[in-house]
Amino acid sequence: MSKAIPASVTRLIEAFAQLPGVGNKTASRLTYFLLRAPAQLSENLAQAIAELKSKTRLCSICFNITEEEPCAICADPQRDASQIMVVEEPLDVLAIERTGSYNGRYHVLHGVISPRDGIGPDQLKIRELIKRVQAGSVTELILGTNPGLEGDATAMYIKSELDAAGLHPRLTRLARGLPSGADLEYADAATLTRALQGRQSL
Amino acid sequence: MSKAIPASVTRLIEAFAQLPGVGNKTASRLTYFLLRAPAQLSENLAQAIAELKSKTRLCSICFNITEEEPCAICADPQRDASQIMVVEEPLDVLAIERTGSYNGRYHVLHGVISPRDGIGPDQLKIRELIKRVQAGSVTELILGTNPGLEGDATAMYIKSELDAAGLHPRLTRLARGLPSGADLEYADAATLTRALQGRQSL
Repeated sequence: MSKAIPASVTRLIEAFAQLPGVGNKTASRLTYFLLRAPAQLSENLAQAIAELKSKTRLCSICFNITEEEPCAICADPQRDASQIMVVEEPLDVLAIERTGSYNGRYHVLHGVISPRDGIGPDQLKIRELIKRVQAGSVTELILGTNPGLEGDATAMYIKSELDAAGLHPRLTRLARGLPSGADLEYADAATLTRALQGRQSL
Repeated sequence: MSKAIPASVTRLIEAFAQLPGVGNKTASRLTYFLLRAPAQLSENLAQAIAELKSKTRLCSICFNITEEEPCAICADPQRDASQIMVVEEPLDVLAIERTGSYNGRYHVLHGVISPRDGIGPDQLKIRELIKRVQAGSVTELILGTNPGLEGDATAMYIKSELDAAGLHPRLTRLARGLPSGADLEYADAATLTRALQGRQSL
């Protein structure tokens, strides 16, 4: 960049631009915003970033991100331990928790099988999931990986591993169909096909 | 937020969400990205943010952001000191520098007169600009405030202040017209009117 920009400004622009969805222009805008904003705001942000990794870890049971061991959900006796929802990422746990309509436990795989990205089953928390089911109290696994090629393949892989281990909990997938508020006219064919196949009697 | 999220994660999500253009969803995505990314990346970002304010200041001549006093542009004897481009924000300096077609100096107002936001001339670096012109060597002021009501009003205010001080450098405004690559069909009426008024002979 030109010498119109001091090194410390360039450095922050470059650091922001490493974040997903943040291009060079957005990175500049964020940096110059912080330059003008009260110092407190920068201090908070810097400290929150610095503490993020040092204070958090993965729960040894469900592998969600937590500050305590085990995490609040695994430690909660009110949550149904016979039901485990298997999801790809910690953000998925958040999304499900926001619905307020699930009271079981979770298992975070930390990714999905993706030969394209060189990610195989061993890089995911699948072995740990099988062990949780082997331990005995689980009666249903909701395979909540994303609907799509990789999520479907990962769900199928988990099913085959359970079969191979002689484990037969109830296995379910989240329903597919039209999203709430959707317009049939604009729905893609795959979604409409799923909606038809999964139609429910009134 | 729910107890599915550790406090340190919530804290960073909230800090990110203070940034302009970053909503709660983007803030979550950035936070969970940092959780997965190498620690080096978070450390760089936290340090860059922390150092941003401590290492930078405003140049006492042009009020651009700088680490040295005066800034690199004001200190550069190759830059034409008889020409000053007056801009609203440090980012505008960047934009002009990127063109590589300006070799004068700058003056950053740090805003624009905006009664709506309670910003009057005294909160801008206008008095300092008049003093620079009074000092003598300036022969042209390019009033590079944004084209629009507030930018135009600020430019007019500067002109009247110069007149009142008996100062008469050449005053110019950046040309208005169609942006490069624009399509007449989609241009707004104000832009087209300006493009017509400012038409140039071939």
